[in-house]
Amino acid sequence: MTSKRFAACKQLRRKCHSDCIFLPYFPPNNPQRFSYVHRIYGASSVGKMLQQVEEHQRGDVADSLYYEAYWRIKDPVYGCVGIITALHEEIYHVQFQLAKVQAQIDLLYQNGVYTFDS
Amino acid sequence: MTSKRFAACKQLRRKCHSDCIFLPYFPPNNPQRFSYVHRIYGASSVGKMLQQVEEHQRGDVADSLYYEAYWRIKDPVYGCVGIITALHEEIYHVQFQLAKVQAQIDLLYQNGVYTFDS
Repeated sequence: MTSKRFAACKQLRRKCHSDCIFLPYFPPNNPQRFSYVHRIYGASSVGKMLQQVEEHQRGDVADSLYYEAYWRIKDPVYGCVGIITALHEEIYHVQFQLAKVQAQIDLLYQNGVYTFDS
Repeated sequence: MTSKRFAACKQLRRKCHSDCIFLPYFPPNNPQRFSYVHRIYGASSVGKMLQQVEEHQRGDVADSLYYEAYWRIKDPVYGCVGIITALHEEIYHVQFQLAKVQAQIDLLYQNGVYTFDS
């Protein structure tokens, strides 16, 4: 057991060993980070998801799980799927604007007055 | 107990009552739907997330949880956060194209030859 338990093990009230899977990704100075993923996925599931990838990928797993858990708590109905929907709408809006100005450019080409380097 | 257990209760090997929280959102003809959310969140957590919202919102909760679970299984490192990153890149790309064609339009305005209805 280490002299200082890390955020995850502290919240789980269990012994924290030096090879603890949570240790590098849920530091004691940010207890909310583990609290959120624990609330949504459960500690056992988070541990499994960290273990099933290569060690160098675990930081990204912890970050993306925290991001998803954060949004699920903030928006219990849609979670981060709400963000995906909003981004799709934004893309649609920008593509619409793009098509509009491209149509203006096409009109000028048809008039044969201007030539542009694209 | 109903004569026909629904996907969730079948997988959990438990009795399925007519007021089962999973019943309307995890039908028996789509066992994968519950299997995915069960694997990522656990049945207890899914039940809690359904219960904490209004009844008319539960379909959306089940859909968004399934979507997130599907992507977490498909991409164990980034889950659906990988989609959010890709969409941000797509928006950046479309905005860049938009700025480019808008600059072309501005050039024409400066030359004072064309006027457009925007």
